[in-house]
Amino acid sequence: MADLTLALDAMGGDSGPSVVVGALSRALDAFPKVKFVLVGEQQELQALLNQHNLNEHPRVRIQHASQTVTMTDKPGYSLRAKPDSSMRVALDLLAEGSVSACVSAGNTGALMTTAYFTLKTLPGVLRPALMSALPNNNGGHGLILDLGANPVCDSDTLFQFGVMGAVAAEARQLGKRPRVALLNMGEEDIKGNDAVKGAAQLFQQSPHINYIGFIEGDDLFSGKADVIVCDGFVGNVALKSCEGLAELLLNNIRQSIAKHWASRLFAKLFYRRLSQSWEWLKPDHYNGASLVGLRGVVIKSHGDANERAFFSAIEQAVIEAQEDLPSRIRDRVETVLLEQQ
Amino acid sequence: MADLTLALDAMGGDSGPSVVVGALSRALDAFPKVKFVLVGEQQELQALLNQHNLNEHPRVRIQHASQTVTMTDKPGYSLRAKPDSSMRVALDLLAEGSVSACVSAGNTGALMTTAYFTLKTLPGVLRPALMSALPNNNGGHGLILDLGANPVCDSDTLFQFGVMGAVAAEARQLGKRPRVALLNMGEEDIKGNDAVKGAAQLFQQSPHINYIGFIEGDDLFSGKADVIVCDGFVGNVALKSCEGLAELLLNNIRQSIAKHWASRLFAKLFYRRLSQSWEWLKPDHYNGASLVGLRGVVIKSHGDANERAFFSAIEQAVIEAQEDLPSRIRDRVETVLLEQQ
Repeated sequence: MADLTLALDAMGGDSGPSVVVGALSRALDAFPKVKFVLVGEQQELQALLNQHNLNEHPRVRIQHASQTVTMTDKPGYSLRAKPDSSMRVALDLLAEGSVSACVSAGNTGALMTTAYFTLKTLPGVLRPALMSALPNNNGGHGLILDLGANPVCDSDTLFQFGVMGAVAAEARQLGKRPRVALLNMGEEDIKGNDAVKGAAQLFQQSPHINYIGFIEGDDLFSGKADVIVCDGFVGNVALKSCEGLAELLLNNIRQSIAKHWASRLFAKLFYRRLSQSWEWLKPDHYNGASLVGLRGVVIKSHGDANERAFFSAIEQAVIEAQEDLPSRIRDRVETVLLEQQ
Repeated sequence: MADLTLALDAMGGDSGPSVVVGALSRALDAFPKVKFVLVGEQQELQALLNQHNLNEHPRVRIQHASQTVTMTDKPGYSLRAKPDSSMRVALDLLAEGSVSACVSAGNTGALMTTAYFTLKTLPGVLRPALMSALPNNNGGHGLILDLGANPVCDSDTLFQFGVMGAVAAEARQLGKRPRVALLNMGEEDIKGNDAVKGAAQLFQQSPHINYIGFIEGDDLFSGKADVIVCDGFVGNVALKSCEGLAELLLNNIRQSIAKHWASRLFAKLFYRRLSQSWEWLKPDHYNGASLVGLRGVVIKSHGDANERAFFSAIEQAVIEAQEDLPSRIRDRVETVLLEQQ
């Protein structure tokens, strides 16, 4: 941990660098041995560091980047036309080994494309995947991948997501033999498309995976599985649907509260508690989403993350870098591939 | 409406015929001109009708069926081995024109397979789809299909779902030019798989569809679209995920309520209101899910429906039969197909 340095893309996200510098200030206290490189517009960042009394902090330095990837930039465009963007420079630092992880709240598509381009996948890894923690009824959490990096996945890719997810679950100490499940439209063998049916066979054949079978959407939050595997289309729609539902319910509750004097009286209390239960729902928000399968730790924070949320993403990056998740994934994938031969 | 007769599969569902007869009793009051055929075990049904003082009701008759499809029967098995099941007999009545619609709370897979086998698809229709109403933030509702009849769909099939959904939305008076959207993992043109991209082009080219583009999962409940189109895998997972989330939130709320004296005091009140907001969430529950694209009205009620919920499914069947939804879909599909030539 002594040598851990993180690159923070300071210009990504809806709220700009002030949120990132605020989160950095918390992170400096929380992780007293970790160093940080703030990547972005030198002058603007310097001014923000001054505001936070961090101007000559021994564990912080600024790396200037003259461009910014906007939330509407197409991934290919940002890659071609913005070689000096804060996102790209932060990822380059990671690719050249100057830092151990990179955190960005920027444009998801651009981040995935740029990270894939600069870092490449680990040996043997077919596709990187976006992975997020998912809270459950038991008060714990599981992991779900992919959340949007791959709209279409074949059986081999889904199988590998399970392998990578299991390694990540072990690193997070979610159990020594994390329970891996495939998300499907039914629990019976005959259900689903060819990709999930084929992946199920690969899981059943592998002694490296504690495969527990198909689960349905209503088990996403039940704690039945530690790792839930799906293609990026299904994962993205499922989690965003939950976001939409939460908003609808919050609206309903607001209205219910307004209808009765007793509830109006305690509305604030209720509302605060409920909002807290909601917080983790943003798909790439809860502790940050990891882009796994690459030669480096890349954490995507939600675009509209506040200081606390961006701090969670940093925390996530510290954990994955400490555990050297990429090396652990590389080793496991190698073992599994050798065994399949 | 004078000649409307509905067949009710009395043996389907988790709670057996007592729920169906209870719902029938309500339906006889609510729809004073509609006749009903209760399909199932003669003696058991007769006893239940007696209990409800419906033993010689002029608008009710029993059609005996000696077999019952269980919730765990494989679709193919029920079709082959249970030719005299209540589900099959009810669908046969519909196929031969003795009734105008069929309602069942039985095994979803068996119902879809048996309905497809006995009724066949309408001319020109590629695949039937399971369609459900979806409440939204504006207090109204939209329609979503497919929810599980087709794990994989090509562009043409998705396009037809949009056509059928639009006809159903018109029949429900959700607007003269219902807004049709494709569910995707992003709103940009480049997002998604080939099927949704191809379907988007078909929608854009058709003057018969008021196509509004891609929407993401978080717009499922926003009221942005009247008809939301997706393949059965995505639709099933999205809606069941929402079910799972609702359960998790209900748990959270229960715990929040227990933590504070003021909330404990009014817990019952809150809880009742919240549970009401939740009721519609079961994927094939809200008013019953329609199996559209077949030569007849088939409504699937949730397996654990109570009397009120099964009554909603009956209500749904009455509306679709009155509107003669299958004929309307047949005509529109014909028009669209002619135009595409």
